Amino acid sequence: MSPVFTALLPVRWSDQDINRHVNNARIVTLLEEARLAAIAHWLGERGIPDPASPRVVASLTLDYLRPIDHGPDLTARVWVASVGRTSYTVSYTLHQHGNIAARARTVLVQMDPATGRSAALPSAVRSSLNELLVAEPCTGDERA
Amino acid sequence: MSPVFTALLPVRWSDQDINRHVNNARIVTLLEEARLAAIAHWLGERGIPDPASPRVVASLTLDYLRPIDHGPDLTARVWVASVGRTSYTVSYTLHQHGNIAARARTVLVQMDPATGRSAALPSAVRSSLNELLVAEPCTGDERA
Amino acid sequence: MSPVFTALLPVRWSDQDINRHVNNARIVTLLEEARLAAIAHWLGERGIPDPASPRVVASLTLDYLRPIDHGPDLTARVWVASVGRTSYTVSYTLHQHGNIAARARTVLVQMDPATGRSAALPSAVRSSLNELLVAEPCTGDERA
Amino acid sequence: MSPVFTALLPVRWSDQDINRHVNNARIVTLLEEARLAAIAHWLGERGIPDPASPRVVASLTLDYLRPIDHGPDLTARVWVASVGRTSYTVSYTLHQHGNIAARARTVLVQMDPATGRSAALPSAVRSSLNELLVAEPCTGDERA
Repeated sequence: MSPVFTALLPVRWSDQDINRHVNNARIVTLLEEARLAAIAHWLGERGIPDPASPRVVASLTLDYLRPIDHGPDLTARVWVASVGRTSYTVSYTLHQHGNIAARARTVLVQMDPATGRSAALPSAVRSSLNELLVAEPCTGDERA
Repeated sequence: MSPVFTALLPVRWSDQDINRHVNNARIVTLLEEARLAAIAHWLGERGIPDPASPRVVASLTLDYLRPIDHGPDLTARVWVASVGRTSYTVSYTLHQHGNIAARARTVLVQMDPATGRSAALPSAVRSSLNELLVAEPCTGDERA
Repeated sequence: MSPVFTALLPVRWSDQDINRHVNNARIVTLLEEARLAAIAHWLGERGIPDPASPRVVASLTLDYLRPIDHGPDLTARVWVASVGRTSYTVSYTLHQHGNIAARARTVLVQMDPATGRSAALPSAVRSSLNELLVAEPCTGDERA
Repeated sequence: MSPVFTALLPVRWSDQDINRHVNNARIVTLLEEARLAAIAHWLGERGIPDPASPRVVASLTLDYLRPIDHGPDLTARVWVASVGRTSYTVSYTLHQHGNIAARARTVLVQMDPATGRSAALPSAVRSSLNELLVAEPCTGDERA
């Protein structure tokens, strides 16, 4: 299984704001869609969001490099950048018009809903993620 | 004028996702609301979003510290953390239940719509922002 | 208790679309906010949305009379227009700039989550709603 | 050209609300996506939303027949139900799990942005729409 997952992200007309580009907050929704598709592809049933054993977004860093338009294809590349005991990091690039339009990273933490605290990743999830680890993060120089 | 702007942020029922907390992407929308209110307060007419002279979000870092609920008051504290030639940085904390629920920072860049490149901040905007600069960033230890 | 509930509806900057008015779908979200506030006011604890005994929107009719802007106050008037055995109807007008900007009506149906079918409204809910019934629907001629 | 346009509508995870179904307001966004795709298909360049000559939604009726889920395919059927001098009506059915999940109708009005009043549909648009008119509206008995 290729460790870099690629997805075509449908942009909705209403994702645009009055500046006629996709709104900066809506890009976080598009990253969420890309991440959920990647995790479903990577982890299968174990990747389905489960309120009884949630893995939540603990932090986000996002660089908006170019405006994203409604209309032309927008694609995401998604990969696992690191895996820890209770959390892992997913990195993304968004591509449009042959350029990188955004670069992002989210840390996802396994939660114990009973205590509201972080908990160890299930070992099957952790070993799957470790196999997907991209040793050399994509540099961002490549084109879509 | 106090350099730390405080706003009450109305949370909508539909901001929640199936985990029954405010969705992580929607929190970026709430930050946007807090920032626009702060900028309107700080800059008056010069702060109104103007498609002819846009200042766009170039990067975002966001730490989700606690789930945010629909119902209890959610407040934002917003301040200017740095000012450069073409950009400035706005920092935020979100507060609910007496705790800090999120901590964020956005870099805003002045754009020249003709060229699509960054441009110098208007000098009146830059001097207003410099007067608002918070020398010691809020530490996050304080309560709302 | 006045049978016509009035609420101030905060409009978000990102509720606007590229036409620089509040997007037509987002107006349905604003109606949802107005309805939930009205129901909480009218029914108290019995009005809190409860996934175990949901009352869902079964139909919506909505007339968009004037564009709704970000900035100026937007208010809603909400009232109970009819009450049946398994459903009731909520009517709304939205007001801005001293004019009616939209007029809407939603039918809400009590669901039995076990069967996925409609069920009788709890009698306490039904009698509360009957007391709120507005015999003469607001005509829409009045100003906010 | 078939007068009934069919589109697959991608549902986002965050379109769900705490009831774990697609939120009722978000279904209006999905109808908007279906309509814009249909109009682009039917009218080509003349169908592209143009703030200088907008055709806006003047009214909406929407029957929610079954909950819509995230995951299984959701398709829309869209057709022109009537054409007038300044407006036309688009009808929709949404289909999932082999059933009709929603049935809707929107009236779209040609606006003159200078006056804020309705105006005659451009004659080329009007004649294209008239050719698409579905004499016998889909009954809703058919399966997707």
